[in-house]
Amino acid sequence: MTDLRKDPITGRWVIISKERAKRPHGFAREPLDRGDSELCPLCPGNERMTPPEILAYRDSGGPNDSNWTLRVVSNRFPALRIEGELGKTADGIYDRMNGIGAHEVVIENPSHDVDLFDLPEKQFQNVLWAYRERFLDLKRDHRFKSAIVFKNHGLAAGAALAHSHSQIIALPIVPKRVMEELLGAREYYRFRDRCVLCDIVMQEMEQKIRIVEETAEFLVYAPYAPRFPFETWIVPKRHQCAYEMINENQAYALAAVFRRTLRRLNIALENPSFNFIIHSAPFEEGASDFYHWHVEIMPKMTNVAGFEWGSGFYINPTSPEESAKFLRELPE
Amino acid sequence: MTDLRKDPITGRWVIISKERAKRPHGFAREPLDRGDSELCPLCPGNERMTPPEILAYRDSGGPNDSNWTLRVVSNRFPALRIEGELGKTADGIYDRMNGIGAHEVVIENPSHDVDLFDLPEKQFQNVLWAYRERFLDLKRDHRFKSAIVFKNHGLAAGAALAHSHSQIIALPIVPKRVMEELLGAREYYRFRDRCVLCDIVMQEMEQKIRIVEETAEFLVYAPYAPRFPFETWIVPKRHQCAYEMINENQAYALAAVFRRTLRRLNIALENPSFNFIIHSAPFEEGASDFYHWHVEIMPKMTNVAGFEWGSGFYINPTSPEESAKFLRELPE
Repeated sequence: MTDLRKDPITGRWVIISKERAKRPHGFAREPLDRGDSELCPLCPGNERMTPPEILAYRDSGGPNDSNWTLRVVSNRFPALRIEGELGKTADGIYDRMNGIGAHEVVIENPSHDVDLFDLPEKQFQNVLWAYRERFLDLKRDHRFKSAIVFKNHGLAAGAALAHSHSQIIALPIVPKRVMEELLGAREYYRFRDRCVLCDIVMQEMEQKIRIVEETAEFLVYAPYAPRFPFETWIVPKRHQCAYEMINENQAYALAAVFRRTLRRLNIALENPSFNFIIHSAPFEEGASDFYHWHVEIMPKMTNVAGFEWGSGFYINPTSPEESAKFLRELPE
Repeated sequence: MTDLRKDPITGRWVIISKERAKRPHGFAREPLDRGDSELCPLCPGNERMTPPEILAYRDSGGPNDSNWTLRVVSNRFPALRIEGELGKTADGIYDRMNGIGAHEVVIENPSHDVDLFDLPEKQFQNVLWAYRERFLDLKRDHRFKSAIVFKNHGLAAGAALAHSHSQIIALPIVPKRVMEELLGAREYYRFRDRCVLCDIVMQEMEQKIRIVEETAEFLVYAPYAPRFPFETWIVPKRHQCAYEMINENQAYALAAVFRRTLRRLNIALENPSFNFIIHSAPFEEGASDFYHWHVEIMPKMTNVAGFEWGSGFYINPTSPEESAKFLRELPE
């Protein structure tokens, strides 16, 4: 069984995944293999290699047929289990609960070799819509307090399968980074009666020096204090606390600008490993005035993360003004 | 000039190191080269390749002579500069200050090929004593609020030079991870009138299942909610808020147990990359009752950090009970 455990000093929760338990010699990494689609559990025809689908888009046929264009399944090696009670207990001064949660894989397209940013806009939109559908469904489970979408692209970003996919994790807690944003944004709102991300969008649009692209609905920019070179955020210009509030038009607009941004990064940094993560308000009510959902894209250009992990203090060799200018001026 | 910039949502400070500015194609990494000690700026005889020494241990001879056993110099490519004013300014809703701070390199021994954990205990003690001396000196500069010691060992941990060394950074702010511990520990103290790390030490000594080694002065254990496989902490059993408070006997005791712990990890994980960091109370008064200095050792066994960076949520495949048992039972 998997444990969720809370650090008694900082309040950070971690997953201790005993089922995937590793002995000291179990850490060897297999390199990402792009070639072998016969053995790829995410390829059409291999549906039996994954748990049954939770959601799929297809024009005809039934569940788990191979003619899908997008498919969502449970992770075969889930960090968290969907069945069971939370079982919150104390262990002396420590706090733990069972590793209950959802861990899903969004198979973004049937082709083994096509990356997310190489999909047509319409298919990219389907991916974003699938995230929304899953959020709305997971939200109905009252054991879950929050969900996040993320993608690991490339070995340095932690991808384990070459076939392009993203992941959704729903949690019985609010993860630390979202909690920090939540507390910071609430503090700002109390003081100023305005949403901090709305104010950031306003200032970025005035200063213009960190903007990569502006559309009617979204602002793409390098944040003022980025942790990583070429870290890039996509923020809705209208105030909206939760990702699942997007409508169809917004999803289409986001698909266009998100796809262009990933393509820009891919050209500028020559096919970098990257992660993106969608931060969205926790499921419980109360954050609607001050929290503002957004996408954070983090290319993995440097390897100096050990110190940063230990201190929370990031040294970034590329200023956001430079990275935004570079991305802005790239031919599309 | 280097900027210190504050993220307006979470309050995290980052260093934007414009002098080391990198264009998109500047991120290629040179592999760690162990062979070439002629070109190593940390080797004896190459003292002119580093800035002048700040501190050195040698039996005879003068500053910057080549007969040292330990040497502390400024980093040649410092993330922060020692000269200048803080120049705190607002930029609209953003906050920044000049990148003032100290960034020093502790060259732990003259031999190009001898790792820290292969030094004799006495020399290991010198390294720990040098940290203390530098802390006491840096503390006198009232621009600095805190200092941290850290070591990157191996490429995956961000080491750029093969010659064994550690680093000290003194900062005009308190880094985020230390601040979190400080706030969490203060909260705990307010509630219970006890230091949280003292309580942890007590419970670990009772439960015994996460202990790697116990000595008269120190407890070595795997923390209850570790972020990384084989994460290991060394905590003084007596309550002490700041590293620089250690006396000579404690330094000797710490050297012995710290060295053994690194050797255990090195054997168990077959020469892993690792980081360690010493968390110590900020220089300003007021934390003495509730903060408790300690060493955090983080082997780098997994590469799945992208998601963790984005969420602050760690998935750890090795439970602390397993890792402690494995390390405890290793023949020394």
